[in-house]
Amino acid sequence: MNHDQVKLPKGFILTGVVAGIARKKGKRDVGMIYTPQPCVAAAMFTTNQVKAAPVLLSQRHIAKGLVQAVVVNSGNANACTGKAGINTAWESAKMVAAGLQVKPEQVIVASTGVIGVPLPFAKLKNGILQAIEKIKLPSAIRHPLTDFSQSIMTTDTVPKIVSVNVNIGGTKAVITGVAKGSGMIHPNMATMLVFIMTDAAVEKDFLHKALKDSVEPTFNMLTVDGDTSTNDMVMVLASGQAGNKMVTGKSRESKIFSQKLLQVCRELTIMIARDGEGATKLVEVEVSGARDFAAAKQVAMSIAKSSLVKTAIFGNDPNWGRIIAAVGYSGENINPERVDITLVSGARKIQMCRNGIDPGFSEAQAKQLLHNKELKLLINLKQGSASATVYTCDFTHGYIDINASYRT
Amino acid sequence: MNHDQVKLPKGFILTGVVAGIARKKGKRDVGMIYTPQPCVAAAMFTTNQVKAAPVLLSQRHIAKGLVQAVVVNSGNANACTGKAGINTAWESAKMVAAGLQVKPEQVIVASTGVIGVPLPFAKLKNGILQAIEKIKLPSAIRHPLTDFSQSIMTTDTVPKIVSVNVNIGGTKAVITGVAKGSGMIHPNMATMLVFIMTDAAVEKDFLHKALKDSVEPTFNMLTVDGDTSTNDMVMVLASGQAGNKMVTGKSRESKIFSQKLLQVCRELTIMIARDGEGATKLVEVEVSGARDFAAAKQVAMSIAKSSLVKTAIFGNDPNWGRIIAAVGYSGENINPERVDITLVSGARKIQMCRNGIDPGFSEAQAKQLLHNKELKLLINLKQGSASATVYTCDFTHGYIDINASYRT
Repeated sequence: MNHDQVKLPKGFILTGVVAGIARKKGKRDVGMIYTPQPCVAAAMFTTNQVKAAPVLLSQRHIAKGLVQAVVVNSGNANACTGKAGINTAWESAKMVAAGLQVKPEQVIVASTGVIGVPLPFAKLKNGILQAIEKIKLPSAIRHPLTDFSQSIMTTDTVPKIVSVNVNIGGTKAVITGVAKGSGMIHPNMATMLVFIMTDAAVEKDFLHKALKDSVEPTFNMLTVDGDTSTNDMVMVLASGQAGNKMVTGKSRESKIFSQKLLQVCRELTIMIARDGEGATKLVEVEVSGARDFAAAKQVAMSIAKSSLVKTAIFGNDPNWGRIIAAVGYSGENINPERVDITLVSGARKIQMCRNGIDPGFSEAQAKQLLHNKELKLLINLKQGSASATVYTCDFTHGYIDINASYRT
Repeated sequence: MNHDQVKLPKGFILTGVVAGIARKKGKRDVGMIYTPQPCVAAAMFTTNQVKAAPVLLSQRHIAKGLVQAVVVNSGNANACTGKAGINTAWESAKMVAAGLQVKPEQVIVASTGVIGVPLPFAKLKNGILQAIEKIKLPSAIRHPLTDFSQSIMTTDTVPKIVSVNVNIGGTKAVITGVAKGSGMIHPNMATMLVFIMTDAAVEKDFLHKALKDSVEPTFNMLTVDGDTSTNDMVMVLASGQAGNKMVTGKSRESKIFSQKLLQVCRELTIMIARDGEGATKLVEVEVSGARDFAAAKQVAMSIAKSSLVKTAIFGNDPNWGRIIAAVGYSGENINPERVDITLVSGARKIQMCRNGIDPGFSEAQAKQLLHNKELKLLINLKQGSASATVYTCDFTHGYIDINASYRT
């Protein structure tokens, strides 16, 4: 992965402040993005039928196509909060609009945190006012990415930021993405909270298509705990300040832009999996030799969601029997007697299963390899040529600790 | 539940011996059932496409309808062991047949334990010879149910036996079931290892139908960790030694027999959920007001499989937001604004969610109630009149401990 230096694209002002909504004292919990010029915007949202108030509001706003501000809070999801929750989301959009002199319909609202508890509007209001103050000061841009990325964290242990350069017909542009996500991660056509910013000029329909194409093989291939959130949202904002000729679906530059957007999404996905609640290891499950992509994805997800596979990885146990069991109950029609399973870390490979049985591998060596922090499981079904990779993590005491005491 | 005294029906001789297959020294790991007269038999098996050798063999044997012996080992699943595994299963059936002078095709073979490791045939052979010896001695029947039930345990912490009396047209008969199961529990049209014995005379087709009808609302509504085993099997053997008039689908007594069989299945299901790996609490998830049974089951399973719901219950956290999130991503079409969620234990009820939002319940009281060891979650979708109950347990450090070190 060729990380470029983390930086903000032109045309974006960010900040993050402490409003006292999050339980942890002194944690930044209200973040804001302001773009002096309206941005072309595209977004995807959770497919959970239980949708948080800010998701319902932002879906309507994004449909209008232009966005000039984003306000996001952590510590409270504003989900299952009824009409009061919808009012809170709308009032905060109006407040941001008034403070930054933009249209309320061009403000996107996002929340993450506890579900079912009213969002304390007085605290949010205070946070919004602070953020607007900071946005207007030159000092607001001193650590904008850091402050903003911290403001959206909940059980995350590290901020997640990716920045890449993209050369569009000779013009240099930047794509920068910021994500939060650690638990309740099993996106389905959308995910967590992800804000991607670019100063490239991009045509709206193409931007939406490029985002959709990037989300399918990245955030939609990610699972920490199999729970799809009520607040998932991934959004891309294009300010056009780089000065390139507008990228459309027909321009030669559409390919490079799509590639770079995909790269940002993939790197954020991997960061989220690595920082899964309680995780000690990043695990990529790659299923190949499938009849089609859907089949490969279903088998890979079945493995990546298996508590037994994930606890074995935590325990450094090369228990491939649990992997093939998850292949067998995936719902896809497979032939157990053709299945190969290989454990990979770095340059080392150990085949643990060949044609459905143990080829006589060294358990001691596999156990050793499992101590590494980045692992791949390669499963070959030998039924076709399609493949899919799902990103996940191990399942540990840390997950139980975090989630048995999340609100207490 | 009106437990009758645990006893064996007439016509069954059981034993369990120590063969050294299980890792734990001195643990009984080979069990045997022998019926001097052939039994009418019915069984259901795992739907996992990766099927253990004994499952493949026993499916063929059960199809012939009569069974006279069962041999079962714990400590090794004989799954993903190739042709050698099939040979081992077949050789053990022949060995049992020779020793007890029955037909090899009337011997059922079952295994449970680690997947993908060759079953040590020398040890199994030794266990089979010991068991045959004991079966032939009068002393073999001193603690037959205890010894047999211990021999099939793996991570189970308690043996699971249920016995009920049934009056069939004036004749007293007994139905006794023995189960093992603690992890890799998410049956799908079959389950774990369950052996049900009755001395009632029952016609074969009716026995199969009664078993199927009993499994659907019991073992198929059970989940510990969402992992469907390669070795699941539930079997009922009817010796006919009670002397009743044969029960058929048309006899008046079919209803009482089915009721009692269902009772045995339900009580074993609850025992398995309560003894789920690492579990501290038994949880019944009852979804009502659904459009049909399939919808109710899907929503209940979505909740019962949620790691976030199960860790919250472990942590005594009345976090109903995680429950409604699982309702929302279940895949069933629901209206979040009509959903009610009530926590029940014994005679106490606390409604935590009414029409999708918090009705203002006491968190302190809910937290207190969650300390109880038997809990019910009632979810009313208010869309129809169908309901379904799924049995599960909480998700704890114990599960991680057991499964991170299962083979080490």
